[in-house]
Amino acid sequence: MSRVSIRLVLDDPAVPGAAIGPGKAALLRGIESAGSIAQAAKGLRMSYARAWSLIDELNRLFTEKLVDTETGGRKGGGAHLTELGRAVLALYDDITNDTNARHADALARLPRKPSAND
Amino acid sequence: MSRVSIRLVLDDPAVPGAAIGPGKAALLRGIESAGSIAQAAKGLRMSYARAWSLIDELNRLFTEKLVDTETGGRKGGGAHLTELGRAVLALYDDITNDTNARHADALARLPRKPSAND
Repeated sequence: MSRVSIRLVLDDPAVPGAAIGPGKAALLRGIESAGSIAQAAKGLRMSYARAWSLIDELNRLFTEKLVDTETGGRKGGGAHLTELGRAVLALYDDITNDTNARHADALARLPRKPSAND
Repeated sequence: MSRVSIRLVLDDPAVPGAAIGPGKAALLRGIESAGSIAQAAKGLRMSYARAWSLIDELNRLFTEKLVDTETGGRKGGGAHLTELGRAVLALYDDITNDTNARHADALARLPRKPSAND
């Protein structure tokens, strides 16, 4: 089943290539549900260092952080999405769902090769 | 200026990760305007081998090729988009433009940090 995935491309002279795609969206979603960067990273089979680096990048893109960490140190405490973090994730999901709903018929009409599993 | 870029994700058990994103779309567009894979690759600062490998991948995803090469050998002859190639590129562009138009206001409301160049 073909579908559309999106990237929010945030043209930023200070951060070349700044964008929020499926990977960062999944990380934000994982933090929202797990309440922890370490748990979210584990669920995505991503290293903690990689997850932290993506969060740090996200937190520098907007006027406020998207993810807030609680006392207890980087690994010790929990983490949660800020109001802006929830809004950005909601916008990502909204655009993804809306785009897929609008173009579902055209995507289904693409003459894909029948695959071995069909 | 924030914007949305898209990937057409073509779930295909035979080709894990099969998708058409901005890179392949730009390559198809380059071939359409240059009439040559070599010229299109050059315009995108992409190696000829890389461009050929992307085209080969694209040509295996659908019931028909997206790019047809003319006699003269891989480097010798020209190349052009097939009817299906033009239709896939048009769909890619249509979804991109439609999505950006629909969500322009929400994207503009994201509280981006003022950058040094603003």
